[in-house]
Amino acid sequence: MEIKLAKSYGFCFGVKRAIEIAEDSKNAITMGPLIHNGEEIKRLQENFSVRTAHDMSEIGDEKRVIIRTHGITKEDLATLKASGKEIIDATCPFVTKPQDIVKEMSEQKYKIIIFGDANHPEVRGVRSYAKNGALVVLSVEELESEILGPKVALVSQTTRKISEFQKIVAYLVQHVSEVRVFNTICNATFENQDAVLDVAKESDVVVVIGGKNSSNTKQLLTIAKAHCADSYLVENETDLSAAWFEGKKVCGISAGASTPDWIIEKVIAKIREFSI
Amino acid sequence: MEIKLAKSYGFCFGVKRAIEIAEDSKNAITMGPLIHNGEEIKRLQENFSVRTAHDMSEIGDEKRVIIRTHGITKEDLATLKASGKEIIDATCPFVTKPQDIVKEMSEQKYKIIIFGDANHPEVRGVRSYAKNGALVVLSVEELESEILGPKVALVSQTTRKISEFQKIVAYLVQHVSEVRVFNTICNATFENQDAVLDVAKESDVVVVIGGKNSSNTKQLLTIAKAHCADSYLVENETDLSAAWFEGKKVCGISAGASTPDWIIEKVIAKIREFSI
Repeated sequence: MEIKLAKSYGFCFGVKRAIEIAEDSKNAITMGPLIHNGEEIKRLQENFSVRTAHDMSEIGDEKRVIIRTHGITKEDLATLKASGKEIIDATCPFVTKPQDIVKEMSEQKYKIIIFGDANHPEVRGVRSYAKNGALVVLSVEELESEILGPKVALVSQTTRKISEFQKIVAYLVQHVSEVRVFNTICNATFENQDAVLDVAKESDVVVVIGGKNSSNTKQLLTIAKAHCADSYLVENETDLSAAWFEGKKVCGISAGASTPDWIIEKVIAKIREFSI
Repeated sequence: MEIKLAKSYGFCFGVKRAIEIAEDSKNAITMGPLIHNGEEIKRLQENFSVRTAHDMSEIGDEKRVIIRTHGITKEDLATLKASGKEIIDATCPFVTKPQDIVKEMSEQKYKIIIFGDANHPEVRGVRSYAKNGALVVLSVEELESEILGPKVALVSQTTRKISEFQKIVAYLVQHVSEVRVFNTICNATFENQDAVLDVAKESDVVVVIGGKNSSNTKQLLTIAKAHCADSYLVENETDLSAAWFEGKKVCGISAGASTPDWIIEKVIAKIREFSI
């Protein structure tokens, strides 16, 4: 069986940057999991004593706090600053951008709409910068019952699909006089998405490697499945099943933006074992 | 044969307003044809001595100049003002709006894109308010060879189809960080378009009444034809042909935004004669 890597996969700029920051911040604690990848977080804890607080109360007396790639809320940041802790900001610059936009646009009295998952930490953080609240939606249907007003500013969670974002834009353009559209979808996400589509078309089985709670990994799986029905999501090599590869000729590989290369390598090695 | 009027047709707010202004401005001259309807312009000339200058040179020594519904260029307006003439502004407020937006957005350093026909007087006027020029396009293909930069402001000619405008928006959202979308398509245009679609579906012949150089009338014809192949554009009753109505059961009627009721009535009377 041939193994074909997608042209673009795995870690994005923001994640690579966050890991470097964490490796340089031995013994610090991160507010929220640094990235959406349990394996990498474990490695940082074991090799660099970088631990994870799951909420503000778990930070306790720690003096050095790393802000996760997805960012935190404005209020939590203010609390940390007020407590005099050293703040090491690993927020992805592509996430800081929608935070800044939302702050600026809400000051300019635009109604803020965020295209994304209201429960995702990135979106919770971005939303917290809206002075008078923000509407968070995943579909046009959710907009239909809302009074939108004449001026709307729209941002997107960085890991969303552009085609879905476009549907929100189209609805708003039809119903609002001025729509200020900020395409804050990350290029890395585009690149991995385009690449998994290409590789899925040429494969009869696809393995997407990444966290099962990572939205960008799940998007990759959705795209892969649309072009290759036998597509699977694994967090590491132990999730693989030999049966997936029986009789297959080409196995496509992609990985979410938070998946480190060393996990991808282990998964590929295991797939090779199956296909011998 | 049943004659079915579209639920909304004919004169829009801006045209009604311009005619009232012209009727109140006896002996004045309009800069460019007041509206896109030769018959109505003839009536204004005959009954109110309101004449038409086709360019600035034809204004001559006239003291009172009416600005047409489509507006004029910033430069022509400045020339008229400098010459001390009395200016009677019949520019449709829905056209003044994109003029103001283009002025403001170009001052804020946005690249200006106008969705519309570069040769249309409305678009020429709107474009003239862009400090450093504007890109005027009718299709996505025209955008593909352009360097767009990070900040774009988009307006539309008031009489364009929203579905085509949406294609431009979608392209820009995918290629530009911030797209400021001003939906300056006129509601009257929407209403007449929706109504002609409905009536065309229920008809086996459709007559659209309006100026043959009126872009909104041509749009109505395009929509009608998509739902009823036997759709025709007429400027007045003399353009009608008896053959169009032979064996037909339902004749749908719509009219462009510049078509006066008295022309519509004459056309309907003539169609009734054919179908006796």
